[in-house]
Amino acid sequence: MPYTLKEIADSIGAELHGDPECRVKGVASLARAENGHLTFLGNSRLSRLLPDTRASAVILTATDQPMCRTNALVTGNPYVAYVKAAQLLHPAPGFTPGVDANAVVHESALVAPSAFVGPCAVIGERVRIASEAFVGPGCVIGDDVQIGHGSRLVANVTVSHGVRVGERVLVHPGVVIGADGFGLANDHGTWLKVPQLGGVVIGNDVEIGANTAIDRGALEDTVIEDGVKIDNLVQIGHNTRIGAHTAVAGCAVIAGSVTIGRRCMIGGASALSGHIEIADDVIITGMSGVPNSVMQAGTYSSGMPIMENPTWRRNMVRLKHLDELARQVRNLEQALAQVQTRLEAKD
Amino acid sequence: MPYTLKEIADSIGAELHGDPECRVKGVASLARAENGHLTFLGNSRLSRLLPDTRASAVILTATDQPMCRTNALVTGNPYVAYVKAAQLLHPAPGFTPGVDANAVVHESALVAPSAFVGPCAVIGERVRIASEAFVGPGCVIGDDVQIGHGSRLVANVTVSHGVRVGERVLVHPGVVIGADGFGLANDHGTWLKVPQLGGVVIGNDVEIGANTAIDRGALEDTVIEDGVKIDNLVQIGHNTRIGAHTAVAGCAVIAGSVTIGRRCMIGGASALSGHIEIADDVIITGMSGVPNSVMQAGTYSSGMPIMENPTWRRNMVRLKHLDELARQVRNLEQALAQVQTRLEAKD
Amino acid sequence: MPYTLKEIADSIGAELHGDPECRVKGVASLARAENGHLTFLGNSRLSRLLPDTRASAVILTATDQPMCRTNALVTGNPYVAYVKAAQLLHPAPGFTPGVDANAVVHESALVAPSAFVGPCAVIGERVRIASEAFVGPGCVIGDDVQIGHGSRLVANVTVSHGVRVGERVLVHPGVVIGADGFGLANDHGTWLKVPQLGGVVIGNDVEIGANTAIDRGALEDTVIEDGVKIDNLVQIGHNTRIGAHTAVAGCAVIAGSVTIGRRCMIGGASALSGHIEIADDVIITGMSGVPNSVMQAGTYSSGMPIMENPTWRRNMVRLKHLDELARQVRNLEQALAQVQTRLEAKD
Repeated sequence: MPYTLKEIADSIGAELHGDPECRVKGVASLARAENGHLTFLGNSRLSRLLPDTRASAVILTATDQPMCRTNALVTGNPYVAYVKAAQLLHPAPGFTPGVDANAVVHESALVAPSAFVGPCAVIGERVRIASEAFVGPGCVIGDDVQIGHGSRLVANVTVSHGVRVGERVLVHPGVVIGADGFGLANDHGTWLKVPQLGGVVIGNDVEIGANTAIDRGALEDTVIEDGVKIDNLVQIGHNTRIGAHTAVAGCAVIAGSVTIGRRCMIGGASALSGHIEIADDVIITGMSGVPNSVMQAGTYSSGMPIMENPTWRRNMVRLKHLDELARQVRNLEQALAQVQTRLEAKD
Repeated sequence: MPYTLKEIADSIGAELHGDPECRVKGVASLARAENGHLTFLGNSRLSRLLPDTRASAVILTATDQPMCRTNALVTGNPYVAYVKAAQLLHPAPGFTPGVDANAVVHESALVAPSAFVGPCAVIGERVRIASEAFVGPGCVIGDDVQIGHGSRLVANVTVSHGVRVGERVLVHPGVVIGADGFGLANDHGTWLKVPQLGGVVIGNDVEIGANTAIDRGALEDTVIEDGVKIDNLVQIGHNTRIGAHTAVAGCAVIAGSVTIGRRCMIGGASALSGHIEIADDVIITGMSGVPNSVMQAGTYSSGMPIMENPTWRRNMVRLKHLDELARQVRNLEQALAQVQTRLEAKD
Repeated sequence: MPYTLKEIADSIGAELHGDPECRVKGVASLARAENGHLTFLGNSRLSRLLPDTRASAVILTATDQPMCRTNALVTGNPYVAYVKAAQLLHPAPGFTPGVDANAVVHESALVAPSAFVGPCAVIGERVRIASEAFVGPGCVIGDDVQIGHGSRLVANVTVSHGVRVGERVLVHPGVVIGADGFGLANDHGTWLKVPQLGGVVIGNDVEIGANTAIDRGALEDTVIEDGVKIDNLVQIGHNTRIGAHTAVAGCAVIAGSVTIGRRCMIGGASALSGHIEIADDVIITGMSGVPNSVMQAGTYSSGMPIMENPTWRRNMVRLKHLDELARQVRNLEQALAQVQTRLEAKD
């Protein structure tokens, strides 16, 4: 959908240098943009690409603007402005409302007239699908689920009974929301299943990546607050609460009964132990293990970077004896101090 | 489904102190329980909550009973007793038997009259679905699969050809049982696919969490023994055998041809290398790497806990040189010993 | 499908010692093979099993052949020869072409007459499914997707709009190709979604394991080159490119904008950070963390092997102070050198 640069500048709050009537139809990277494209310069180190870009317009900072030979949209944060422009130029795909003839919708379910239910989707009893919501092909929605206004379950998503999904939530294929948590009690060597009687509550403006699983609570609910963004293949255990605007990257494992604050960033492939608390504004870098609560905002890390294989092997042998090594060093310090004393006595 | 406290006490083997005719309709946590709820005190440290609970009855130990002002169910293991009561009060949801009109069942498949096949489920040739089994919406069951009595495939589960699932097995959405194992042979730089000709055998009373994948064997079967409990997003490679009553937590990765004993606990996000053996009663804590066999029962760990990011960075630089550090310490010890000798010679 | 040993020897390029007309109908392991089976000896250490095998024929090296009492197929690489024979004897299951009556195929889609679309599969607008391709039950194929000749999407696979899948690609159940990448821009504490406008291009002869997710690119495409083999539950971020004939084992996490070379092996449960480059012929062993580019072929490792739990606890306390320990050692060296100097002065 083409827009004039004036329309875009107004929409994203940038200052236009150039032709306000120039029309752009899409975004592209600085290196690959063609005539009709809008691009951006997010990093001054790439400004050498500016003179050669074929883009019709570039979003950039005032500092970089002098090097721009085409139309410029000047702003303090070019990446955020670019994203807003890209959202304008490339809106989420529309759809024709209605229930597909090949969907299976229980007669007690309420589907808003402006909502869509795709082929081979199965909608349970008393489900409520709000206006402009999209339940794609192959989705299975359990009894008593609520899907809020404008939410989009792309395809093959499973939502178990009683789960509440907020507004404008985007759920990618393969996601499972509300499966039983891993609740077991050991009874003389065999496992008893603990009935999982809680639900899941997903706030507004949440995004959930492909094949992620969010378990229902044991007694109370698992809660994902507004604006949380979750990547693919993430595991979220029962009773866990993730605070508003926190982002969780791919393959992170968040065990049960974890409470994560607001605006945190949980790195990919990291693992949080159960029953811990993470304060607001905590950053956990990728592949970190978090065994205990983190009560202070800040950046925390663990995880071992690769080494050449023979070096790693040698170092791991030593790591198994690190405590002994530290004791040896302590002993050396004491022995050396004695030697120094004896030497002094000889002076 | 409400029960009297007498019925519950009899069922869970607890000693009732209070009104045997009092009826409870559900369970709740100590803090949130209302009139009509049964709750439990599993940890004496929470006994301060006892006097204020509004629960109709509390399951607790004889030690904590004196502090309880309401009906009490006294037992040695309150949590196990609670779970049994919760199972009684909150049984798994029932279903109306039959094959949904929107299921696609091959004419050669045998579905017991008391079983259920949901809408948009697809059942292959010669499949046998036993009595009281539940195959939910969107499940795809390959040819020659057997699903045992009372098993429940919740929704969108895929079971490949020839897999055998035992009785009372609970399989959560998105699970894939019997996909090809990752069998490759390198032929001058390109990969040949090794045909995966084995199957998967799942015992009785197994639970398999959302989006978990269990591969079929290469030549023989992958085997999950009775009572094994597997959490979400777990990977189980071909030819692996997991012993009875072992529990595997979320996002664990168990490679191919691994043999795990009985009653083990494999922590979340841990990884077991291929072709190893784990003895009975081994506990692997979360995020551990297991490169070799473990022949002794016990608790084993690896994985690095988080540190503040700058500390971690400094420590990781040192870790890359840990072997050298250990050599330096060795050299120091030798040099110091020489110094001591020389000093003694001077005495 | 039985073959004579002569047919097999010709097909796999082995030298036949024995009866060329002997027919075998399948493969089995050395220990379990029966009459009518073909087996192989890949490792001379197992040659003690040779005299007792009941197999009709054994694939082995010239070195091991003298110990073989039955028909022998002699070759330099018995495992590769075995795999070729197994592929011959156990071809992928065939299918009857056609669109199932319970599939939902948009009228603008083109399905080759020799292709198959299974029950409850949903095929979007302008999709092209080439000759001999198989789109199994429950698959959802978005608009404008292309599926190449002979490719097989087993069941419950989701392919988002515009994705191109090459020829002879095997995609296991639960796979999601082309979901949005995890692109976010932080705008004063809330996350803006970066439109994901690129696609995914999958080359020929690729295999993708169960429940793996491959994200679409942000602006350009995510690319999986020819012959790449990907195991289960792998995450591949947006804009990433995986070079031809690279293998990625289970639960590996490959972040966005990663470029991996040809013929690499990425171990299970390893994690590659975003925006890095991996050269050709790099081996990353299992559970390794790769924070930076690897420009040299070779084998690289990290990840900590398990220890007994109390040892691990002690060592991890020390690890948090490893930098200090290294400083202590440095101080000791200097102090000892001073002591040595002073001692020398006394000689």
